[in-house]
Amino acid sequence: MKRRLDLQEYKEGVLSGNRMILSQAITLVESNLESDLALASLLVQEILPYTGNSLRIGITGSPGVGKSTFIEAFGSMILEKGKKLAVLAVDPSSQKSKGSILGDKTRMEKLSANKKAFIRPSPAGQTLGGVAAKSREAMLLCEAAGFDVILVETVGVGQSETSVKNMVDFFLLLVLAGAGDELQGIKKGIMEMADGILIHKADGDNLAEAKKAKANYQNALHLFPASESGWTVPVLTASSMSKIGLEEVWKMISSYEAITLESGFKEKNRADQRLKWLDENLQYLLGNRFSEHPKIKSKLQAERIKIQNGEVSPLALARELIAMFFEPTN
Amino acid sequence: MKRRLDLQEYKEGVLSGNRMILSQAITLVESNLESDLALASLLVQEILPYTGNSLRIGITGSPGVGKSTFIEAFGSMILEKGKKLAVLAVDPSSQKSKGSILGDKTRMEKLSANKKAFIRPSPAGQTLGGVAAKSREAMLLCEAAGFDVILVETVGVGQSETSVKNMVDFFLLLVLAGAGDELQGIKKGIMEMADGILIHKADGDNLAEAKKAKANYQNALHLFPASESGWTVPVLTASSMSKIGLEEVWKMISSYEAITLESGFKEKNRADQRLKWLDENLQYLLGNRFSEHPKIKSKLQAERIKIQNGEVSPLALARELIAMFFEPTN
Repeated sequence: MKRRLDLQEYKEGVLSGNRMILSQAITLVESNLESDLALASLLVQEILPYTGNSLRIGITGSPGVGKSTFIEAFGSMILEKGKKLAVLAVDPSSQKSKGSILGDKTRMEKLSANKKAFIRPSPAGQTLGGVAAKSREAMLLCEAAGFDVILVETVGVGQSETSVKNMVDFFLLLVLAGAGDELQGIKKGIMEMADGILIHKADGDNLAEAKKAKANYQNALHLFPASESGWTVPVLTASSMSKIGLEEVWKMISSYEAITLESGFKEKNRADQRLKWLDENLQYLLGNRFSEHPKIKSKLQAERIKIQNGEVSPLALARELIAMFFEPTN
Repeated sequence: MKRRLDLQEYKEGVLSGNRMILSQAITLVESNLESDLALASLLVQEILPYTGNSLRIGITGSPGVGKSTFIEAFGSMILEKGKKLAVLAVDPSSQKSKGSILGDKTRMEKLSANKKAFIRPSPAGQTLGGVAAKSREAMLLCEAAGFDVILVETVGVGQSETSVKNMVDFFLLLVLAGAGDELQGIKKGIMEMADGILIHKADGDNLAEAKKAKANYQNALHLFPASESGWTVPVLTASSMSKIGLEEVWKMISSYEAITLESGFKEKNRADQRLKWLDENLQYLLGNRFSEHPKIKSKLQAERIKIQNGEVSPLALARELIAMFFEPTN
């Protein structure tokens, strides 16, 4: 067994960009052991002054849309620009079979082989709230380690998209051109979260279809409420296989960054996000304490079906459970 | 001061359709006094077997879209069909100035005057989570009192839409035809929640514009993920002033009800909703206990700006607050 590092060793290792220590630090953040978490929490607080300097990009889309191919091609392009790149996946492990990909590093051969890239799959064995919280801390650690661009991947079928939207500067939705069912697998509401929409696999026979889809999406977006940032959501087409349109994606995101930096929205958005992180952490920790309480757990299990059937009032049960939790003598 | 009724009196009053007692029962549910809430909770549990028989319709849209005019006209039409109608508003009182309308009953003169209609404005002085929880209980009380159709209005600019979506069978979005900024005032994500979209004020000079908007929305909806219910979201046009298109709205909702009843989705959806209500109640009650803790409150207030500025780690603060809450001796 490896000797456990102390706070100072973790901090120095991360700040010096030592990838092995960065990996270990992220493992620490992902741990469920209280002693690990206590140390992880101290570590994140220590490295906080060195965070915030990356461009944070969220990437989502249905399974099959080609997220890993895109990240491989787009990521390689970013590396060629001389930037250091980290790629994180945010999805509960149970979702992996549905299409999360970073668990399978071999599908990103070029990126995995490049020393300026750091790829981190989803934390295993985590519940949703936990995954999101842990991915945020992992992102901060990557920033402290000097990565310039962080791609955060989420699969779009679960419930982690809001969390990812709340941790990135730019949220990119990948879709396919097709017969009106481009988003079949994806959750409702995700389209309206996007800062940019990319019609992927726009090559060969798909090209004409992709151009049509582009016009359709542009028309549809006119009906959406305006963004708080004042940004008009662009619709682009690209092919990762043919390496077409990737530069335009980078330009779109860079332009978004420049505009929101200028307008102050970027910092305002990040400040809002930090409050949401606090809120999410509190809800998660509070909820954990509650639902792990043995009596609560068994009561919830027993009453669940009665709630579904409408035999027990949700308010009455909630009040009873809260009383059990806070006044255990009753 | 009125004598307070006992549980049995409330129950019998509500079940017999006594509107004064129904009003008082809702006031009880909306109360912040623990003694009132305890009684309210018992009452809701008691009347639960008599609930579930109404058609629950959520209505949302930006301020200015004409929700109150629509509810007045649509509601009158429902009454003419021999159905008993209740109208509830779900919006925190702070949002009222932004367009919630039921506080001003005079704007629904016809409905207010009709004995088969029951109109209840937003509970005053409630926080968001509280409003949603209380509106659900109010809805159940109305059902127990024999109302056949319940319209639940929400203003679409706050955060109560998800709660309303989660308490109704059918969620109707009202929009205006216009120059591409129909939804300017509305929150993102609401369009994708809708089971039906109604282009309102489709009369006179607006008619041509409304028809164009209808085609645009229909095209846009093709790009959306399919509903879990398998339902294709219709786009209708109507004018409450000219009483045009209201019958079609009713047919759309009735048809949705028939289809989802047949497919089993209606009951499945309600069972899911009940679990969400439990969850929402738990989060609300748990969050209340937490945030009302004096030490937590003052700490949160003091650290808020540091969180926004990125000086304090949200995880670290969350852990500290949770420890303060559960281990107050430290």
